[in-house]
Amino acid sequence: MAVTTERRAIVRLRGSDRDARGDDVAVESPLILGLPDEVLATLMRTPGHDLELAAGWLVVESGVQRADDIVQLRQCRDDDTDRVHITLRDGVDPPRPRAFVSSSACGVCSADLLDLAPHQHSDPHNRGWTVTRSMLASLPDLMRTSQRGFAKTGGMHAAALASPAGELYWVAEDVGRHNAVDKVVGRALMDGLLPATDQLLVVSSRVSFEIVQKAVAAGVAGIVAVSAPSSLAVDLARDYGLLLVGLVRGESLNIYAGQEWITAA
Amino acid sequence: MAVTTERRAIVRLRGSDRDARGDDVAVESPLILGLPDEVLATLMRTPGHDLELAAGWLVVESGVQRADDIVQLRQCRDDDTDRVHITLRDGVDPPRPRAFVSSSACGVCSADLLDLAPHQHSDPHNRGWTVTRSMLASLPDLMRTSQRGFAKTGGMHAAALASPAGELYWVAEDVGRHNAVDKVVGRALMDGLLPATDQLLVVSSRVSFEIVQKAVAAGVAGIVAVSAPSSLAVDLARDYGLLLVGLVRGESLNIYAGQEWITAA
Repeated sequence: MAVTTERRAIVRLRGSDRDARGDDVAVESPLILGLPDEVLATLMRTPGHDLELAAGWLVVESGVQRADDIVQLRQCRDDDTDRVHITLRDGVDPPRPRAFVSSSACGVCSADLLDLAPHQHSDPHNRGWTVTRSMLASLPDLMRTSQRGFAKTGGMHAAALASPAGELYWVAEDVGRHNAVDKVVGRALMDGLLPATDQLLVVSSRVSFEIVQKAVAAGVAGIVAVSAPSSLAVDLARDYGLLLVGLVRGESLNIYAGQEWITAA
Repeated sequence: MAVTTERRAIVRLRGSDRDARGDDVAVESPLILGLPDEVLATLMRTPGHDLELAAGWLVVESGVQRADDIVQLRQCRDDDTDRVHITLRDGVDPPRPRAFVSSSACGVCSADLLDLAPHQHSDPHNRGWTVTRSMLASLPDLMRTSQRGFAKTGGMHAAALASPAGELYWVAEDVGRHNAVDKVVGRALMDGLLPATDQLLVVSSRVSFEIVQKAVAAGVAGIVAVSAPSSLAVDLARDYGLLLVGLVRGESLNIYAGQEWITAA
């Protein structure tokens, strides 16, 4: 039975209550799809129904149309990594080479598995500042006042940088949540602010591995998200010493990493 | 000034009210990033701040750390396609080749721009059935009763197939919305149901180009989404004759394509 959720120790703040507890997060981990002689793709997915995932991916990406177009799907686990080995029927078009296009919701399309570690341009350091719960809780609403595209469509993500005092630096919108982050990081680069060690990255979305990867590359101190992080996002944030706050709803929020930086006020 | 939202003619159903109107959707369109001698990536993005997007993408994907690592970003529009031409400073590591890894939120990483059209395994056809508004409105809540991972984490997407009578066929969950769709399509393939011309694809997420691409490849009759579609999703659904319903909230929903199949009841 695949493990689809995992528990992480978090701190939940509700008003002035501070509650250390376990919290279930969605598991995110890599699955490598391969033909006998080549790796086709590494999908960051929640384990479970991996053969269905491989089969469905083949329908979209190749000439597979019927179950018997696939001779075999064989799942195994090597070196702590999940793999599905695919054998297609002779004459079925194999998947197209994976290159050049990333979707509006895609950020780690460019690396092979060994390269999943983020580009880190700055070392973790003693930031010497703390942030208040109330400031963190205010950031999504503050960002929303600049989300003109979201207000019109209800279907656009946003990202921003924020100072420890809660001032927003710049807000970008995009249909792709990782594009919104890239736009903000790009603006910070142009303005000479990278590594942005005195800034928090604010996102309107959930936090997957790729969002933490971008945060590390930009050198920000942490991430504040409207929605929940994945398991890999929590683990990566902890590994790289980032603050990670999610499920910010009104006066309540969850601290997944970096609780020592947050004062109750 | 970049166009970030576009208007589409839709039908909004609120209880028994049927209101033909214009609706703003987020623009989704390709941006090609290239070095002088090679294409690096095609990003599906919302236009606007494309230079920031390119710069931020370079921070994450390459050795760019400071503004002067980038000698020039030059934006142009050829053949109706937006491009950013990148010149890096000598000695800066260029982006890694884009291959083999797709993210938990990524579906169209594998094609070049000319290949953005979906694999279509079945022709559009006269389905000979209609669906009721109340059935469509019931699908997200019905699916949610099977979303065990979402109930635990608040951070997992789901997809399902549904019959015109409103029976759910199978529900899959994943941190990646496109993975959830692939799992459902894969299960339908294994069960000999493709092309799934008598099924609707139900998704817990927004609808981007890539989700419609997957729906077309699976041959489903339409898409029912909790959240909003992008411009390209609406256009592609119309081009391929799919029903597209979004922003299903209680008794209200928006019909973006295929209104002739939906009766008011």
